Amino acid sequence: MTSRNFDSLPTVEPVARLIEELNKLPGIGPKTAQRLTYHVIRLPAEEARALAQAVLDVKERVVFCSRCYNITDKDPCAVCTDLRRDQTRICVVEEPLDVLALERVQVYRGMYHVLHGVISPMHGVGPDDLRIRELLVRLQGSGVQEVVLALNPSLEGEATSMYLQKLIAPLGIRLTRLARGLPAGSELEYADEVTLTRAFEGRQEL
Amino acid sequence: MTSRNFDSLPTVEPVARLIEELNKLPGIGPKTAQRLTYHVIRLPAEEARALAQAVLDVKERVVFCSRCYNITDKDPCAVCTDLRRDQTRICVVEEPLDVLALERVQVYRGMYHVLHGVISPMHGVGPDDLRIRELLVRLQGSGVQEVVLALNPSLEGEATSMYLQKLIAPLGIRLTRLARGLPAGSELEYADEVTLTRAFEGRQEL
Repeated sequence: MTSRNFDSLPTVEPVARLIEELNKLPGIGPKTAQRLTYHVIRLPAEEARALAQAVLDVKERVVFCSRCYNITDKDPCAVCTDLRRDQTRICVVEEPLDVLALERVQVYRGMYHVLHGVISPMHGVGPDDLRIRELLVRLQGSGVQEVVLALNPSLEGEATSMYLQKLIAPLGIRLTRLARGLPAGSELEYADEVTLTRAFEGRQEL
Repeated sequence: MTSRNFDSLPTVEPVARLIEELNKLPGIGPKTAQRLTYHVIRLPAEEARALAQAVLDVKERVVFCSRCYNITDKDPCAVCTDLRRDQTRICVVEEPLDVLALERVQVYRGMYHVLHGVISPMHGVGPDDLRIRELLVRLQGSGVQEVVLALNPSLEGEATSMYLQKLIAPLGIRLTRLARGLPAGSELEYADEVTLTRAFEGRQEL
């Protein structure tokens, strides 16, 4: 029953190709790509078409706002053109998803600027690969009074914040960044050293 | 700076829709769907088109083999029409992915039959929802000498194997199933009770 000669191994070209395409997506390994592919095969045709169309539409109809570089379907975006928002503050974030996260908590009502990454020599990302120049242009004579740096509390996020600080400080604009400390619901006993150090250093008067 | 009135929350319709479509896929939660969507937005247009096309092709060009119910781009499939394979054995599996897994290890050179699931009252799946009737029709006067049950060693897989056993036993065909025991590279000390019991019960002469 054992044989090493398998000419008829069932490789179905469209199946292999979808597995390959899905496997290219971040966080989707070959096993997940296989499972998703077999799921798509069993979808009703109209649902598969809806998925394919959604992929096409997001490429065709979504652009980056030419002011804040957030994603939008009309340029400039809804935030940049909303006159009820505070035009004198700009919150700088790494990714469009960060804008979504901040909007969800409804604590900020100013403008945004999306860098599309952080400076990361390890990954070959320098300042010129980000929307830093565009941020500086926006700040020139703009009446902006505060720039909130809301980058991730990672090594690269911190380094990028420091880089931005050097560039923005000479402009005389108030520069803030999000607080570091213990996350809500966490237990002090399990906090990592860096978090605990930051929480202690940033302790507030009661 | 605090406000609870956010009319300009940046919901971009094509973005929301792709997130929703991806979120429908098994194992893709809302967070992963968001991350994948933002990845697609940044893909070169031709790569996004290739992904969409692969989804469409897999629906349009892939069918189920009318004999073994495996996926194929021509019916009957390459395995069923390969005369060098052993036509007297049928290996019964749950999913097309199981065929792929078995073909990969090259230990079996007979036919397959894909049930497309297992009996699962919890999920409302009865025998009529699977390709069981089609299997019995295949077995009638076919000259098949062995049916290998290669269902998953889960509760439902075992129950389905027992159900099939009752149906196939009267036909006088040899019925086998895959061995249960310790997986390669595992440590006995960490094996769960069921696995260890099965491994002991199924111990083999040296």
